[in-house]
Amino acid sequence: MFSVAQHLDLVLAQCAPLAPVTAPLTAARGLVLASPVVAAHALPPFDNAAMDGYALRFADVASAAPDAAVSVQVVADVAAGSAADPPLAPGEAARIMTGAPMPTDADTVVPLEETTSGSAFPARGCVDVMRAAREGAHVRRAGEEAQAGAVVLDAGVPLGPRQLAAAAAAGSSEVTVHPAPRVAVFATGDELVTPGAPLARGQLWESNSLLLTELVTAAGGSVTHVELARDEREALRARVATVQASVDLIVITGGVGAGAYDVVRQAFGDVLDFREVAMQPGRPQAFGRVGGGPPMFGLPGNPVAAAVSFEVFVRPAIARLRGLTGETRTFTATAAEGWRVRADRQQYLPVIVDGRLVRPAGAGRSHFVARLAQADAYAVVPPGIGDVRAGDAVTVLKATGDG
Amino acid sequence: MFSVAQHLDLVLAQCAPLAPVTAPLTAARGLVLASPVVAAHALPPFDNAAMDGYALRFADVASAAPDAAVSVQVVADVAAGSAADPPLAPGEAARIMTGAPMPTDADTVVPLEETTSGSAFPARGCVDVMRAAREGAHVRRAGEEAQAGAVVLDAGVPLGPRQLAAAAAAGSSEVTVHPAPRVAVFATGDELVTPGAPLARGQLWESNSLLLTELVTAAGGSVTHVELARDEREALRARVATVQASVDLIVITGGVGAGAYDVVRQAFGDVLDFREVAMQPGRPQAFGRVGGGPPMFGLPGNPVAAAVSFEVFVRPAIARLRGLTGETRTFTATAAEGWRVRADRQQYLPVIVDGRLVRPAGAGRSHFVARLAQADAYAVVPPGIGDVRAGDAVTVLKATGDG
Repeated sequence: MFSVAQHLDLVLAQCAPLAPVTAPLTAARGLVLASPVVAAHALPPFDNAAMDGYALRFADVASAAPDAAVSVQVVADVAAGSAADPPLAPGEAARIMTGAPMPTDADTVVPLEETTSGSAFPARGCVDVMRAAREGAHVRRAGEEAQAGAVVLDAGVPLGPRQLAAAAAAGSSEVTVHPAPRVAVFATGDELVTPGAPLARGQLWESNSLLLTELVTAAGGSVTHVELARDEREALRARVATVQASVDLIVITGGVGAGAYDVVRQAFGDVLDFREVAMQPGRPQAFGRVGGGPPMFGLPGNPVAAAVSFEVFVRPAIARLRGLTGETRTFTATAAEGWRVRADRQQYLPVIVDGRLVRPAGAGRSHFVARLAQADAYAVVPPGIGDVRAGDAVTVLKATGDG
Repeated sequence: MFSVAQHLDLVLAQCAPLAPVTAPLTAARGLVLASPVVAAHALPPFDNAAMDGYALRFADVASAAPDAAVSVQVVADVAAGSAADPPLAPGEAARIMTGAPMPTDADTVVPLEETTSGSAFPARGCVDVMRAAREGAHVRRAGEEAQAGAVVLDAGVPLGPRQLAAAAAAGSSEVTVHPAPRVAVFATGDELVTPGAPLARGQLWESNSLLLTELVTAAGGSVTHVELARDEREALRARVATVQASVDLIVITGGVGAGAYDVVRQAFGDVLDFREVAMQPGRPQAFGRVGGGPPMFGLPGNPVAAAVSFEVFVRPAIARLRGLTGETRTFTATAAEGWRVRADRQQYLPVIVDGRLVRPAGAGRSHFVARLAQADAYAVVPPGIGDVRAGDAVTVLKATGDG
């Protein structure tokens, strides 16, 4: 019997970050940076107005006060996006919009609200300034957000909405990333038929291929092949041989036991490591490579065992292939009620998370489909701890694709 | 000045769940159920073996003990997926695999480990049973997971990996769901150019269209139209008029201020509600409908303000359109350090979450792109509270698309 940590070590030793590629920013969703993103230019690239108002020389209006307004002559108009740089003589001002470039002759922006123009906002003529805070007020300086060449995003960062926007703002049209791992999913079992198809005696609706496809996708993999395979050794070998050159990872469910018809063991018993892992559920596990193929998992076919095995072994493998490090997926919670635990295995119990409390999923609906569907997470109880009591602190592993 | 709650009320009053549609299970990722999923058949549909072993009559082996084994004759073999129902006379057994249907004549499974056959697992001949737990042991009963017609998933449930698998296991090939809201994103501003394009004086790289596209997608919307629009009133009106019939929501950034060139106000000042909302950032907000069009947001153009406005107003609107209720996106954390707060507005500060602690994002990198890119969440400080001190409890709003 191997520990969970021992089996995970075997898995991770076979998984390395995929070779970096260049991707357009609009096709980089969820990918992990292989190189930093640097500002292509100073940000902002030019001094600009932080508010709508008037650009002028501070010296002209330094004495302005509500009871001693100073009049300036509006001689120009600078919209955002304008390349204009109107000359301003002393006593003159340019109407300016937020984000518009500061005229070279001006050093300060007086916001609309600190003049008498109110909402009229004249583009020409005289405006009375009632207050001017200080020289340089309401001006965003070139380079104040980032100097040209400054690192905006570090290598290793996953590109979510805000990271992609940061890269765009820094002038990147493309990024260097680890590609999404291409994953083939096989569900095995002669008893399995497509959901909704008529059931003959002995047949069940197949759900693991969809479960694994969705879990892999939510974990940042790209499922490029999904197949329901029969319990035929040679056929499975042939299918894997056909697919393996075009994927980075293979996940097979079912057929890993010691039964006479356990097809994954029959087909790959001599090349994968078949192990008993001290966990509940998920004891039978298989992992390795077939020939020069990519890493391949054989997971147990029970849906809860397959889901748990995914979280414990497959997701960390996908993270490694993606170039992701330091993913934190556990937290500590308090058991709202107790439950039974086998002392000789590490237990993964589907639980419902409610703030800092967790309770076993599926109370009142003990069947696995509802239990799994209700769960947000899995409580992790190491071997040797024994039963959990209400109020105990427990480690909780987040479930992929929840919230 | 309106409160955040008042503006959200205006928004949600204009948003209702989209009319349900039927979707294949494989195209229902992330959608919300409009009708419950019920088991199409009893689950499991037939009595089956819970372990690899021998199906037999308990009465034949009730006396079995390690020192008093009882011999049975193996006369048949039932694999998973087999429709066979071999007759068993007293004293006879069928070799049976996990998941295979129980022969009608058998009532109990004796696991392989409780016989002398060990790993040899003979398909024929004599096997010595060393222990039989009880009548019915290791048999999964038809319907023990769900009776035919039992509710497996309730209406209102979002379909993640485990929920989709549950629907498949229950025999659903399709589900009744609220479709993903189709969203059009417009970024406005004559100063904006595509990231990576050469910058003339006065120009900036545009990031809001990508930011909003990614946020909408991560929130369960489907962005069907993205456009960078010029500051031209008639052109913007025409573009919105063209697009609005084919989307469920429109999000425009920029041009909502009172400036002379604020294009959203110029184009839609007479039909949208333009409001000052007591929040920081994000004070200027616009919302409404144009003609018979879908709900339309005008968000401020500053990227942090746009991101915050999305979380506070647009995401709840998308959730409502999706048919999602009771989405919990806030939690309580402790400030690891203090920060300044304007007392007259509700502050949304980008923060980094570290367990139960939060600290302002972007320390050492004050520019907005890095600040926004580093943030996991936003600390929410209501008006009238004043500065936050280290150790204070603060409400935290999760950022969309993080983790």
